[in-house]
Amino acid sequence: MNIENYMREIGQNARAASRLLAAADSGQKNKALLAIADELKACQEQILAANALDMSAGRENGLDEALLDRLAIREQTIEQMVEGLEQISALADPCGEISDMSYRPSGIQVGKMRVPLGVVGIIYESRPNVTIDAASLCLKSGNATILRGGKEAFHSNQAIAKCIAAGLKSAGLPEEAVQVIETTDRAAVSAMITMPEYVDVIVPRGGKGLIERISAEAKVSVIKHLDGICHVYVDDKADLEKAKAIAINAKTHRYGVCNAMETLLLHESLKEEFLKALAEVYWQKGVQLRACEKSYASLKDVCSDPERLKPAEDADWDTEYLAPILAVKLVANMSDAMDHIAAHSSGHTESIVSEDYSRVRRFLAQVDSASVMANASTRFADGFEYGLGAEIGISTDKIHARGPVGLQGLTSQKWIVFGDGHIRD
Amino acid sequence: MNIENYMREIGQNARAASRLLAAADSGQKNKALLAIADELKACQEQILAANALDMSAGRENGLDEALLDRLAIREQTIEQMVEGLEQISALADPCGEISDMSYRPSGIQVGKMRVPLGVVGIIYESRPNVTIDAASLCLKSGNATILRGGKEAFHSNQAIAKCIAAGLKSAGLPEEAVQVIETTDRAAVSAMITMPEYVDVIVPRGGKGLIERISAEAKVSVIKHLDGICHVYVDDKADLEKAKAIAINAKTHRYGVCNAMETLLLHESLKEEFLKALAEVYWQKGVQLRACEKSYASLKDVCSDPERLKPAEDADWDTEYLAPILAVKLVANMSDAMDHIAAHSSGHTESIVSEDYSRVRRFLAQVDSASVMANASTRFADGFEYGLGAEIGISTDKIHARGPVGLQGLTSQKWIVFGDGHIRD
Repeated sequence: MNIENYMREIGQNARAASRLLAAADSGQKNKALLAIADELKACQEQILAANALDMSAGRENGLDEALLDRLAIREQTIEQMVEGLEQISALADPCGEISDMSYRPSGIQVGKMRVPLGVVGIIYESRPNVTIDAASLCLKSGNATILRGGKEAFHSNQAIAKCIAAGLKSAGLPEEAVQVIETTDRAAVSAMITMPEYVDVIVPRGGKGLIERISAEAKVSVIKHLDGICHVYVDDKADLEKAKAIAINAKTHRYGVCNAMETLLLHESLKEEFLKALAEVYWQKGVQLRACEKSYASLKDVCSDPERLKPAEDADWDTEYLAPILAVKLVANMSDAMDHIAAHSSGHTESIVSEDYSRVRRFLAQVDSASVMANASTRFADGFEYGLGAEIGISTDKIHARGPVGLQGLTSQKWIVFGDGHIRD
Repeated sequence: MNIENYMREIGQNARAASRLLAAADSGQKNKALLAIADELKACQEQILAANALDMSAGRENGLDEALLDRLAIREQTIEQMVEGLEQISALADPCGEISDMSYRPSGIQVGKMRVPLGVVGIIYESRPNVTIDAASLCLKSGNATILRGGKEAFHSNQAIAKCIAAGLKSAGLPEEAVQVIETTDRAAVSAMITMPEYVDVIVPRGGKGLIERISAEAKVSVIKHLDGICHVYVDDKADLEKAKAIAINAKTHRYGVCNAMETLLLHESLKEEFLKALAEVYWQKGVQLRACEKSYASLKDVCSDPERLKPAEDADWDTEYLAPILAVKLVANMSDAMDHIAAHSSGHTESIVSEDYSRVRRFLAQVDSASVMANASTRFADGFEYGLGAEIGISTDKIHARGPVGLQGLTSQKWIVFGDGHIRD
């Protein structure tokens, strides 16, 4: 197989399908989503069988348990896919939404219409459910999709691809609206990210290495999600009950997620009673604290276990642990906290806990991250929690889509102009 | 001078200034804009003297008249700069605008806040007035700016830079909020477009060559403006008086602009009387027609002058003439016209002339360009005409900013969340 030619054909098909998809009405797109759900249910056995092939190959190749778990499709996984399709079909269609229409002094009427981006390329790793998630979000937003899953999930993805194609066909939409690449050759990825004539945007979903590699090589715009080094700042004017609940939730609700807190910034007046009480809860939950000099000095009064308490090193302020580890730093005031955030945040999510009106107002205005919160856990930074219905990723970029990316992030806005024979003087 | 180090310092200064600028209130930014205007007026003689140096160097280096004209600063040019600053100071501040706030079932309140992008790098060619335009748009939108003008305008730009710095200073803003690069070394451009840690977006303003080169090398997002191959489609259900006025205006109002029509698509039923009458007007205005086979056959009845009428070649459908030349093609119907546009448009601006409701509705929904119009001249595709107050360019990209880019295109939206001690279950 000549990969260049194969990918060019995929690209041309996608571009052609994208025009038909952009012209499809909401009813037709929803019909396709529900038809895909029906196909998934009808082909459950074939999907499970294909997944079994991937699982046994994965075991032979020594994939670790966490990876195997992500790779596994169970009956329940298929039910979740079906539910996801139903939910997305129930969301409002973002396409065609007209906003900001107004008359101009020249007499023309100008506004904006929301439209699909065109062709979205998605590159992801082992979870085969991403195949359905990504396909359905792109379909609903009127985009043709090219999907490149991980080689570990190859058979699973191909089985799911058949269901998608059958669903599209039965709704009268082109099967090429969703194309799952039929090769595991890496050259396919290189081709896909360098065909701006056929692909409008790339969404890489996976580890930092994948995303950095793709960003570096791409000649197409990339909606990228890098680290989540999230901060909570507890102010001296915080309600300390709320502060405690938020600090515990932001760190311990789930460890391996990008919106978990990685660094706690504490007003220095809280270094005794509050910090010590909080530390007890972290330790009960098995969280190791990496403390700045002053907080370490305070905490070593109550803890001498180096598994629980370590002095922080410089690297700790720039580390996304994704683990039961928390960096703790005392700051003199909110400005100090904001300086620390500006220097070390990855621009994902930060939260202030304070009852002080002026400080909250300033923190929200001036902290430059995709999500900035007051008196809420960073764990809320999520497409579902924000009401997007679903998300294709969380962008740490400032350009185009920022934070959780749902249907709207997969669209663009064009200008529309109504005249009545208007010409320019 | 070590260019790498110099540019890194510029970048660090810009990043630091961007934080102060993002925290500045609207009044302070407006004060700076008006103070810059005062400085320009006060330093008129120095600016004209600096420009005289550039002009005589330009003449020595054999710049052509058109380039020299663009390079020239006259008293009137300075008046226009002052007026532009006053207009931009009068526009609403885009920063801090909060939208879409709503309560979620969890109890948190979620919305979006418009914020500056951070640091905007602008690379432009010979016109020194861009220095003021770009600086003032970026300042108003809360962004720090790094400006790299053309080497022909070096002395003019440095003289203007002094006024900007003095104006910023007198308004209490950091002088590094606008930095005009003090070297003409091309390595400065290469450094600027590959420092994502210091620069958030690049706006190249200039010829296609410049923009393509920068897009190819950049490691930073680029808001780019490539060709304007704009189409007008005259439907068989058009009001022919309106159609004639629009077709003439879109081509002949100005030739060298990106929103001028380059290809006229005519319903084939219009190939006799309408086409011939229209052609007479074009010829009176000195426009050469490059006609498709059928329209050529029709027009050669009334014209045998090869300076006025030529058979179109394939390349004509993909050419931005920026000149009194127009490609003309007959199409069987609107779908044909839309196929031609999909294949040949640069995605800038297209217009349909038709009184048919369903066709207008379909054309507006399905044509995939930055501006799509009904019964209006393509010449309206412009930031001022759209009410943006000013524009920094016209984007032919779909990502981030599309079409005329004003203050809003220089901003991003972050999510803001208000809670009251909310944690995630």
